[in-house]
Amino acid sequence: MKNNKITLSDGAGGKLSHNLIKKVFLSTLSNPLLNKLDDSAIIHSLPSNCCLAFTTDSYIVKPIFFPGGDIGKLSICGTINDLSVMGAKPLYISLSVIIEEGFEIEELKKIVTSIAEISKKAKVKIVCGDTKVAEKNAVDKIFITTSGIGIVDKKLNISGNNAKPGDVVIVSGTIADHGIAVLNARQKLGLKGNLISDTAPLNNLVEKILYKNDIHVMRDPTRGGLATTLNEIAEQSNVGIELVEAKIPIQKAVKTACDILGLDPLYVANEGKLVITAAPKDAKKILLAMKKHPLGKNSEIIGYITKKPKGVFLKTKIGGKRVIQMLEGEQLSRIC
Amino acid sequence: MKNNKITLSDGAGGKLSHNLIKKVFLSTLSNPLLNKLDDSAIIHSLPSNCCLAFTTDSYIVKPIFFPGGDIGKLSICGTINDLSVMGAKPLYISLSVIIEEGFEIEELKKIVTSIAEISKKAKVKIVCGDTKVAEKNAVDKIFITTSGIGIVDKKLNISGNNAKPGDVVIVSGTIADHGIAVLNARQKLGLKGNLISDTAPLNNLVEKILYKNDIHVMRDPTRGGLATTLNEIAEQSNVGIELVEAKIPIQKAVKTACDILGLDPLYVANEGKLVITAAPKDAKKILLAMKKHPLGKNSEIIGYITKKPKGVFLKTKIGGKRVIQMLEGEQLSRIC
Repeated sequence: MKNNKITLSDGAGGKLSHNLIKKVFLSTLSNPLLNKLDDSAIIHSLPSNCCLAFTTDSYIVKPIFFPGGDIGKLSICGTINDLSVMGAKPLYISLSVIIEEGFEIEELKKIVTSIAEISKKAKVKIVCGDTKVAEKNAVDKIFITTSGIGIVDKKLNISGNNAKPGDVVIVSGTIADHGIAVLNARQKLGLKGNLISDTAPLNNLVEKILYKNDIHVMRDPTRGGLATTLNEIAEQSNVGIELVEAKIPIQKAVKTACDILGLDPLYVANEGKLVITAAPKDAKKILLAMKKHPLGKNSEIIGYITKKPKGVFLKTKIGGKRVIQMLEGEQLSRIC
Repeated sequence: MKNNKITLSDGAGGKLSHNLIKKVFLSTLSNPLLNKLDDSAIIHSLPSNCCLAFTTDSYIVKPIFFPGGDIGKLSICGTINDLSVMGAKPLYISLSVIIEEGFEIEELKKIVTSIAEISKKAKVKIVCGDTKVAEKNAVDKIFITTSGIGIVDKKLNISGNNAKPGDVVIVSGTIADHGIAVLNARQKLGLKGNLISDTAPLNNLVEKILYKNDIHVMRDPTRGGLATTLNEIAEQSNVGIELVEAKIPIQKAVKTACDILGLDPLYVANEGKLVITAAPKDAKKILLAMKKHPLGKNSEIIGYITKKPKGVFLKTKIGGKRVIQMLEGEQLSRIC
C-alpha cells in the first residue's frame, strides 16, 4: 500500500501481501478458520446424512458500486444463491480477488465490509482466500471469484431436470431490477424511479419453503434473465413452460426504463430472485410462505409446466402467444 | 464465437455462452457432475472419518503459455498442491475463467486441454465452473480461479503452526525453476539452459510419505519463494529455522539466470515443490521415499527447526550466517 493505493508488491506474496491481508481482509472477515492462514481451510464437522454442494462464480460487474450493492455484496449473494437453489444450506465461502495496481484501499475496504455484512446476515463463513494484483490496465479495477460449499439433505432432489408437467412456476418478485440498476449507473443514463439492484441472499427465503413442500426446481434467474433460466429448465427437464405476461411482477420504473432502452425485461438480470417449479397441490402454501418473507412479498404464480410443446411460451397481455427463446448473443455485458 | 475468437456475447449467459461451455469446456472436461450444469455440483459420498479441506487461488500469470506449462496447468496444479500440503486428498475442483473479448478459441482449447490432462493424471474432477467475458483491455487475455475440495484423515495434524524444534526441513527438489522460466519467457530474455517451469501436481508425492511418518508441516513455496514460505512457518510455529546454503538444490542454469538478473533464488516462485518439516527419527525414511518419486528425485534435507533465535537464518557457503527475511515488496509480479 502506498498513498492508500494498492501496489504490485501487495500481490507478490511477501510481507506487503501479508499486511494487506491482515489489515483489510482479516480485520473485517475474521473467523477461526480464515485466521489460520494455511493453504486450505480444514472443516471438521459435517452432518453425515447430507451431500455436499459446491459452486463457483466470477464477478466482473461494472461499475463496482451501484444502487443497491457493490461487487462484494454481489459475489457473496451470488454464491449463496447458487447453493440455495440446489436446496443446500450455504456454509463456507472462498474469496479470491484480482485487483488493479493503484486501486484505492478505501474502496477495497468498502467492498470487504459489504462481504462481511452479507456473510454475517446469511450465516456463512469466508474460510479461505487469495489476493492477486495486476498492473495498471491488465484488470479493470477489481474482479472477485467466490466459491461455496453447502450441505444438502439427502432426501431432497432439487435440480433443473426435475420439472414436471402440471407444476406451477413461481417467481419471488419483480424482475429486471439488477440489470437496469447497473446499466443506469454505468451509462449515467439518469433514468428516474426506483432503479435499485435486488442483490440479496436467498438462503433464508428458501429455508422457509424447502422442507414442507413438493418443490422440483429452484433457480436464480441472473445473467440472461428469467427467459434464459426458464429455457434452461425446459431443456434440462424436456418440458414446455407457459407463462402469463400479466402475472410477471415488474416495477413500473423498470418497465419504463426497459421500454426507453429497447430491452426485454425477461432477459435482464436479477440477483435476488427465486424461480420455483412445484407440485400444484402445494402452490398456494408456497406462495403464502413466500409472500410473508421480505424478499418474497411480490411473489406470483407466473405460469405452468406443460408436457408439450417443448420450449417457453408467453401469453401476452393482448391475448397473443409468443415463443420466448434463450438470450441470443449480447444484451448486457459485465452485469455480474 | 466469431472468426474463432471470443465475443462479449459468449459471456452473456444465453445461447452463445451455452455453446461455448459445451464446445470448449464440457467436450474436454466431461464428467457426470459437471455435465449436469446445475447451479452447484452435488457430491454424494464422502467418508465420515474425514475432515474437508477447502482452498482457492486466482491465476494471472503472464505470459499464459511458458516452457513447462500454461495458465491452465498452473491453476489446477496450484489448487491440487494447496490441498495436498494440508494432508488432504484433492477430489473436486471448480474452474472459473474471465476471458478478454477477442481471445483465440484455439488458445482457450489448449488451456482447457492442459486442465483436463492434469485432472486426469492427478485423479481430480472439475465439477463446476463459470465463464465471464470482459471487453478488450478490461482483462489481460485470461484469468483463471480454481477452488478445490479435498478430504483429510482426522488423525492427521499437518499445519503451518506445527513445526517443532529438532525437526528436519526437507525440500523436494531444485528451487526457483518456475519464476525464472516465466520471467525468461515474458521478457524474451533469451537466457540459455534448462529454464523450464516445475509446475506439477504434488498429491501423489505427498501420498507416498504422508501416513507412515511423523510429518509436522507441509507447504508449497510458490509466490515469494522458499524464503517467504519458511518465514511463514517460523512465524506461525514461533520457531527458528536454520538453513544450509550448500544443501539447497538449484539448477546451474537457474542459478546463472538469477545472478544475471540480480534475483535471489530463495525468493523466486516454485510451482511443483514441497517443503516439509518432520521429526528427525523419520528424516532418512522420508528422504528415501521422496527420492524414489519422479517429482522428488532431487530432494534434500536443507536445514533444521530451532527453538531460538526466531526467524530464518542461512549458513552460507563461505561460512557466514545471514538473516533470511520475508520478501519485502515486489520481486516478480504475475508469476502465478
